[in-house]
Amino acid sequence: MTKKKNVTFNDIAKYTNFSKTTISRYFNDPDSLTLENQEIISKALVELNYKENKVARILANGKTEFIGIVIPNLHNHYYSEMLNQILLTYEQFGYKFLVFIGNEHAETERQYIQELLAYKIEGLIIMSFTIPSKELADLHIPIVTIEREDKYVCSVNTDNYMGGVQATCLLASHNCDIFIHINSPTAPDIPAYGRIQGFLDICREKNLKHEIIYKNLGNSYQMMKESLSEVLDKIEKDYPNEKKGIFISSDTHANVFLNLLIQRYGKLPEDYYLVGFDNSPISTEAAIPISTVGQHIEKIALEAVSLLVEQMNERKKRKPVPLEEPIHKIVTPCLIRRETTEK
Amino acid sequence: MTKKKNVTFNDIAKYTNFSKTTISRYFNDPDSLTLENQEIISKALVELNYKENKVARILANGKTEFIGIVIPNLHNHYYSEMLNQILLTYEQFGYKFLVFIGNEHAETERQYIQELLAYKIEGLIIMSFTIPSKELADLHIPIVTIEREDKYVCSVNTDNYMGGVQATCLLASHNCDIFIHINSPTAPDIPAYGRIQGFLDICREKNLKHEIIYKNLGNSYQMMKESLSEVLDKIEKDYPNEKKGIFISSDTHANVFLNLLIQRYGKLPEDYYLVGFDNSPISTEAAIPISTVGQHIEKIALEAVSLLVEQMNERKKRKPVPLEEPIHKIVTPCLIRRETTEK
Repeated sequence: MTKKKNVTFNDIAKYTNFSKTTISRYFNDPDSLTLENQEIISKALVELNYKENKVARILANGKTEFIGIVIPNLHNHYYSEMLNQILLTYEQFGYKFLVFIGNEHAETERQYIQELLAYKIEGLIIMSFTIPSKELADLHIPIVTIEREDKYVCSVNTDNYMGGVQATCLLASHNCDIFIHINSPTAPDIPAYGRIQGFLDICREKNLKHEIIYKNLGNSYQMMKESLSEVLDKIEKDYPNEKKGIFISSDTHANVFLNLLIQRYGKLPEDYYLVGFDNSPISTEAAIPISTVGQHIEKIALEAVSLLVEQMNERKKRKPVPLEEPIHKIVTPCLIRRETTEK
Repeated sequence: MTKKKNVTFNDIAKYTNFSKTTISRYFNDPDSLTLENQEIISKALVELNYKENKVARILANGKTEFIGIVIPNLHNHYYSEMLNQILLTYEQFGYKFLVFIGNEHAETERQYIQELLAYKIEGLIIMSFTIPSKELADLHIPIVTIEREDKYVCSVNTDNYMGGVQATCLLASHNCDIFIHINSPTAPDIPAYGRIQGFLDICREKNLKHEIIYKNLGNSYQMMKESLSEVLDKIEKDYPNEKKGIFISSDTHANVFLNLLIQRYGKLPEDYYLVGFDNSPISTEAAIPISTVGQHIEKIALEAVSLLVEQMNERKKRKPVPLEEPIHKIVTPCLIRRETTEK
């Protein structure tokens, strides 16, 4: 591994017969040169195989083009696909992403964010739940959160309430006798709580017999299987001869529930109707494709980066106008009908 | 969003009564100061709420602590989990990761890598297939690849050959009549080819009746389903009353194949034995848990970062000794027996 010698402003000046000041202006204020001269220098750079030293430029103008991302994990398909879509915006906006797995270690997360600030990142996208939005706002840099508590910072979220409404209306259209929503205990200040509210409002509005089963479903497949097996036992005992419309908090959980039914009956029994949430790959890859509320991950990612870029651009103006209130955008989900409801 | 005024070397010098030169030495060559003086300055920094400007330090000593990662996508669980594990090494090594989705756009990938070089990243981890290893080696920075063509650069790969051997031996232990390996056409210079070679060697050694079905399985679930449905038709036609031992190239494909059988028969028929590869979540989340060859993703990630850190540390020595030959590490997979073989 040999070190290549960097081409200096001096080298470029000699090569093009411009002054060093002109070369410097090319990098820091290109529009002060004529287009012809810009072209001469840009060609010379290619010929000299010039490696632009961005670090030096950052010191000069303070723009790193770095965005930090803090994400809880990448096991969950929702997060890995969201990260996928955010990273793909590089082609559109040119920002580079420093990615950190939050994983519920608050102190490591704080330390990482402090490091990122020292590197002069321009903005942050936060998906982890660890740090309250008040504390994030106090960092005084552009921030957008996705699907977490967001009172004091800008955010982009799915319209979870509308998703709950869509799922419940789909089950209602099949004239089920009992409507059941299965979820982990959920705090009212996180966006996902809207799913529960949507379910409840439709059940009350349409006067449907309903029950919410709150159950800590765990993180491993084995724990989910055990918890949901108990839930299934309870449902079979309480509503033996009724047509059951079941809305489950995520496709991952809906798939576990479906597998329990297939293992018991070799199929999805006639009296079960099932809707999940997310439209994650498991909803199509399940033994029977699962109806679900699809989140527009691509759109959410693009809105989040756009909202961040707006804030970052504002700060580059000579007299930036800070936001008076955080902006909260919501993206409408779309219902996807598959074989667990359309039989 | 108010801008905080940065504390300067001047401020620290005044506060501690040291010279500016001493303060500068604290940042660039701390061991040239006594421990006592280091402590005085470090306390002063806390008291002054000093925000370390890493960008300035990078210019001084050339160490960015940045590693670039190029990954084909995050849809595939193998990649998202590998990225997850690599990012988690932050706590151990302190390196920050700039992540890019390669996604087969060679030119964007080259442009991104050039940008990273301009930012003076210290090393690269490459999982995308886009750029030949010869071209990567010519970048003259520390590089480690994972599961791709790696002739001219360091790499960490699963022992794919051993995985093929393990899967085939497991099927052989159930005394199947016909042994079938299903895979996409695979070039012999990529590590995954070892799976095919392992299957073939065991079949020949044990004199087992066998067939390899090469089929382009596609990228979407729908395409996989159509391709594998044709494969299943062919198997049912060619080997109607025989006990079939089937080794499929990945758990994703094994799950699609399993679902086709469940949709036809309501269960996994007695005469089918099935083994996948990867131990990805779908192998446990399938309607019937799938036997598989488990890749040690956590170990591969750690080995890859360690191998990269060794190279990066070498380059920081006054007289770095370049590697004479690229180092290729392999990690042994482990066989996981589940219900598709243990009935």
